[in-house]
Amino acid sequence: MIAILSSGCTLKEKTDVVRLLEILGHRVSVSPFGRETIVGVVGTSAPELEARLAAMPGVRETRRDVPPYALVSREHHPETTVVRAAGVEIGGDEVVVIAGPCSVESEAQILRIARGVAACGARLLRGGAFKPRTSPYGFQGLGEEALDLLERAREETGLGIVTEVVSGEDVPRVARTADVLQVGARNMQNFRLLEACGRQGKPVLLKRSHMGTIDELLLAAEYVVTHGNPRVILCERGIRTFETATRNTLDVSAVPVLKERTHLPVIVDPSHAAGRREWVPALAAAAVAAGADGSIVEVHDRPDEALSDGRQSLTLQGFEAMMRRLQRVAAAVDRRLGVSFAPSGGPTCPTASPRPT
Amino acid sequence: MIAILSSGCTLKEKTDVVRLLEILGHRVSVSPFGRETIVGVVGTSAPELEARLAAMPGVRETRRDVPPYALVSREHHPETTVVRAAGVEIGGDEVVVIAGPCSVESEAQILRIARGVAACGARLLRGGAFKPRTSPYGFQGLGEEALDLLERAREETGLGIVTEVVSGEDVPRVARTADVLQVGARNMQNFRLLEACGRQGKPVLLKRSHMGTIDELLLAAEYVVTHGNPRVILCERGIRTFETATRNTLDVSAVPVLKERTHLPVIVDPSHAAGRREWVPALAAAAVAAGADGSIVEVHDRPDEALSDGRQSLTLQGFEAMMRRLQRVAAAVDRRLGVSFAPSGGPTCPTASPRPT
Amino acid sequence: MIAILSSGCTLKEKTDVVRLLEILGHRVSVSPFGRETIVGVVGTSAPELEARLAAMPGVRETRRDVPPYALVSREHHPETTVVRAAGVEIGGDEVVVIAGPCSVESEAQILRIARGVAACGARLLRGGAFKPRTSPYGFQGLGEEALDLLERAREETGLGIVTEVVSGEDVPRVARTADVLQVGARNMQNFRLLEACGRQGKPVLLKRSHMGTIDELLLAAEYVVTHGNPRVILCERGIRTFETATRNTLDVSAVPVLKERTHLPVIVDPSHAAGRREWVPALAAAAVAAGADGSIVEVHDRPDEALSDGRQSLTLQGFEAMMRRLQRVAAAVDRRLGVSFAPSGGPTCPTASPRPT
Amino acid sequence: MIAILSSGCTLKEKTDVVRLLEILGHRVSVSPFGRETIVGVVGTSAPELEARLAAMPGVRETRRDVPPYALVSREHHPETTVVRAAGVEIGGDEVVVIAGPCSVESEAQILRIARGVAACGARLLRGGAFKPRTSPYGFQGLGEEALDLLERAREETGLGIVTEVVSGEDVPRVARTADVLQVGARNMQNFRLLEACGRQGKPVLLKRSHMGTIDELLLAAEYVVTHGNPRVILCERGIRTFETATRNTLDVSAVPVLKERTHLPVIVDPSHAAGRREWVPALAAAAVAAGADGSIVEVHDRPDEALSDGRQSLTLQGFEAMMRRLQRVAAAVDRRLGVSFAPSGGPTCPTASPRPT
Repeated sequence: MIAILSSGCTLKEKTDVVRLLEILGHRVSVSPFGRETIVGVVGTSAPELEARLAAMPGVRETRRDVPPYALVSREHHPETTVVRAAGVEIGGDEVVVIAGPCSVESEAQILRIARGVAACGARLLRGGAFKPRTSPYGFQGLGEEALDLLERAREETGLGIVTEVVSGEDVPRVARTADVLQVGARNMQNFRLLEACGRQGKPVLLKRSHMGTIDELLLAAEYVVTHGNPRVILCERGIRTFETATRNTLDVSAVPVLKERTHLPVIVDPSHAAGRREWVPALAAAAVAAGADGSIVEVHDRPDEALSDGRQSLTLQGFEAMMRRLQRVAAAVDRRLGVSFAPSGGPTCPTASPRPT
Repeated sequence: MIAILSSGCTLKEKTDVVRLLEILGHRVSVSPFGRETIVGVVGTSAPELEARLAAMPGVRETRRDVPPYALVSREHHPETTVVRAAGVEIGGDEVVVIAGPCSVESEAQILRIARGVAACGARLLRGGAFKPRTSPYGFQGLGEEALDLLERAREETGLGIVTEVVSGEDVPRVARTADVLQVGARNMQNFRLLEACGRQGKPVLLKRSHMGTIDELLLAAEYVVTHGNPRVILCERGIRTFETATRNTLDVSAVPVLKERTHLPVIVDPSHAAGRREWVPALAAAAVAAGADGSIVEVHDRPDEALSDGRQSLTLQGFEAMMRRLQRVAAAVDRRLGVSFAPSGGPTCPTASPRPT
Repeated sequence: MIAILSSGCTLKEKTDVVRLLEILGHRVSVSPFGRETIVGVVGTSAPELEARLAAMPGVRETRRDVPPYALVSREHHPETTVVRAAGVEIGGDEVVVIAGPCSVESEAQILRIARGVAACGARLLRGGAFKPRTSPYGFQGLGEEALDLLERAREETGLGIVTEVVSGEDVPRVARTADVLQVGARNMQNFRLLEACGRQGKPVLLKRSHMGTIDELLLAAEYVVTHGNPRVILCERGIRTFETATRNTLDVSAVPVLKERTHLPVIVDPSHAAGRREWVPALAAAAVAAGADGSIVEVHDRPDEALSDGRQSLTLQGFEAMMRRLQRVAAAVDRRLGVSFAPSGGPTCPTASPRPT
Repeated sequence: MIAILSSGCTLKEKTDVVRLLEILGHRVSVSPFGRETIVGVVGTSAPELEARLAAMPGVRETRRDVPPYALVSREHHPETTVVRAAGVEIGGDEVVVIAGPCSVESEAQILRIARGVAACGARLLRGGAFKPRTSPYGFQGLGEEALDLLERAREETGLGIVTEVVSGEDVPRVARTADVLQVGARNMQNFRLLEACGRQGKPVLLKRSHMGTIDELLLAAEYVVTHGNPRVILCERGIRTFETATRNTLDVSAVPVLKERTHLPVIVDPSHAAGRREWVPALAAAAVAAGADGSIVEVHDRPDEALSDGRQSLTLQGFEAMMRRLQRVAAAVDRRLGVSFAPSGGPTCPTASPRPT
């Protein structure tokens, strides 16, 4: 059950509601909801309790059959949310491309790639410091050292940083460096991590699990928002199916379905879906045509030497070609890229110069 | 094992090869392969037999490790095949849209819809006469009567006819009416039906099973081609996954994967993938952006009264809006639609007038 | 909508009902239902029509919300159906094991294997004459010749014959030889084939598609039954999932689910599920413990030389070991095998001598 | 690459190996492997390095192509591992049944259920204190309070405690109470949690993710073992497929596949697979027949009032009936339950009296 407290509700009214519920033995979550407040009462839908709540001062509305994801649903929030990170708006007119290597491997590597993708119109830099790996013997990232290198890359290129956090304990440290905290597919239902991301203020890029439903993704986002952070970006990155030609099956339909169900911005990761760089540009273009707000792609200047995911990383040349294609497809659906390429010749990137973050 | 007979091979040389194989007790398939001939020997890869074949007059090459789909593979046939049907080229520059109702329900219904979709730039008319239905109590189509009504619609609109055939026995009758024979998803591995489609000359629209891999689709196409008919169009229409928001999961990656592996044209059916009309235009646009050669969509002028699949059928207004979107996305990937819409105002359809079939 | 005609209904009453419906333009299916008759009216649930039918003589009951599989549902038919074939009862106390090679390859091969499996307690002989193969270049079976060899094997061992039919046209020929017609997984929704199997009298072994739901299997069975043949045996044989260790994933839960939903007997094919012979006995035992009425397994005396599926075929020794294990598990769930093995020493097979069919 | 240091290797030899690798810039993992030690070198397979390592004192063997799960593989460790917890042996002759409610709800509830399942032969008590829930509004467990109640239940019944841990930070607190730490399906690839479980000494019950392959489960177990804790019990609990009749699809084949690939014990959770209590006993019996070492099942004395998972919880009566069935199936595969039921009459439970833990 939830109670919505009106925007004019006083602090005393709010604490009275919460105190009553706690005295009655209920577990309570309190979340901002625009200028109002949602008080969630866990595990009950007793009509008597609802009547009692509805009669209290400050309570505007009660609902016993809570929609499963009340805060991220578009039902109560028809306009699309724009999430701002490092000066970039995700969810607005611009189709935002996030690019960079799977893992930060060295200072030279991350700087070369950061300069390269910035020159082609990438708006944020991705790069893994902490890598969750299926095998304990895989390369697990350079850790904190990589965070320092990402800061160097930001200083030099002006690109904001998107990097993964794999544990609630690490959130404060990663959030000091990152402009956007990424929660990876395997952690979509690591609820402690979601809660920790909800208790800080940096935007969260939440990737759909490779076997999570669209509604489970929305419920995971609801965890972040109920803990206080409304700045969530959703990311479709391919689901696990019987097809083995691709690494995962990009569920491009998730884009219009999510756009209908939630007000949060939606981007796509074509690299992990495809698993091979040859197919990445087609998938990125498909996602933009379907209405995605952006794309996060893996780029490496020497993909054959990459410590992880080299097979699916675009070269810098391949990235530029993809960006030219995206520019045209974005225009065809009345969006724009943060770069303009002359029909023949190099890009004119308004964003390639260092910007303060 | 296969033997490739050279283009200059005589009839006697060819029959000598086949006779030898039959005397030795092998099952043999003989297929045209461009101007050459492929003789397939089933179930053996004995080196001695290969040596003996290689020494015979007329044999240009033998291969023991046959690629699983030798004839439809792009490996030996780098240029994309263009399939012509009713004056329309599928696989060329044009993005071809096939539209119409799930089932032919009455003369008035099919004529209204045919006129409507023709006016918006559809290039072929789809309409089910024989409907495979999961339940024996579902509406199974009007059968032969529907074929007559489709002929009426073609006379009036000039649109060629795409209609499904569900059994090898029905192929001759359906092929008299249809410009393109459709093999539905449930019949992708109905090998007798594939063989019957291979023994006649009309193009075949082969839909991927909701449970078939990309390679199984290519092998199904190989069945049609080995039986003599190289005019096959492949169609991705959504696969079955754990996600239930959509009816099926459109595997948009299948477009670039198929384009890499085969020379056959590839289209997409966004209607059966989405299961709801609201999401169809986004998926159709995604497929074009990914490189598809066309789309087959369900359209009904009164979808709420449709005897089948009404929920996923576009209205005529919705179809026109989708075509306007596709026109722009097609242009963004250097393709074109068979219609041009003025920015404001109706379409100019070069193809909406009756054409001979 | 369906109307159930009472067991005492006259022929005139029955034809009056059908004639009325046809005059009104409805498509009608007429099916025996125990001693009553079910008249199915396709594609309508108009209350006026129901009222009119309910008032006609001979009509015992009408239902607008037809259960999707009225005839095979356990709801109206609580006792389990026992299907008799070649003197064997499937669905009774006995756990029935069907065994034999994937394909009939030669007279010597099928006779050796038939004798071997009969001696270990197999009750029916499986063997493929017409093989649906994913590739047109695979071994597709010996066809009619194989049917003759299966008859030889039956004469010599007394085992009834289970063999696959892949097309409606072939049903009469295959039904002359077979004691049970098998419809393979790829043909579960080949509705013309199901209808043809429904129009003849031999029992039908209907395999679940590797991506068909349990309810789709029941609807496929309903096709056979509505066309006049109530003797259907269902078979779970593994579904397609993301797991690749096994060829398919045996859905052992389908056994109790099917047992709850339908009165038809249910067996399991552990060979196609596992894909490797090492795992077949464990799966066969699991199915019996879960309540299956039997098992169909692939056995070959020289599996490494088999033309198809050798990797998953048990040797004769392996088959005997599996039967010893099944005997004990069957007893643990109050069932019995058609053979008894002394704790040490060979089997005593009451059924290994020739029986008339 | 790995180097295996012999059991007689000195500490200096060991540190020399590690120091060399670190000087050369490699990341190193050091793990006990029986009486030997495995040094893992991450991300390289250079032949020169291998040659250099192979020549060092104390190194018995080097392998460049590391098996992906060296420590849990049966290849180097042919005998099955027996994990002891609270006086119970898992992986030995006994089929061990773990039973209890989904969540600890109150002292009265957990004591009633603990007594009930102990009386019917359960050998360990399950009960959730920290519950990962898909929705932030679901009941998330009583937390530490529940741990205290579980200790009360252990004191009274003698049953050891199995309870879930959802975050690395919680491991020390949960390990003080639990006899077995459970890692739930959603956390199978929460690598920080796996590492924390590996750094303490209580046995770990590791559940397969509903979206994890068998090999990914083994790699997750490898994480625990490489961090120092070899006492891992694997649990198959159903995977996510297209079938919706059951909550998940129990992959019973995983039992023989895991038994072949690993020396760790393997149990099954039929409750989360089935999702409905009616089907649980059939699945539990199937798993035992397939070779499982035990089962973990949800039992509630008032399932309709349960705060979570009531639909799939057995009643105490249902649990007793299941145990009678398991007793017979276990005997049929030469295993035994930790209880004996007289054919008519109650159980004789050698384990139902309080035991020290």
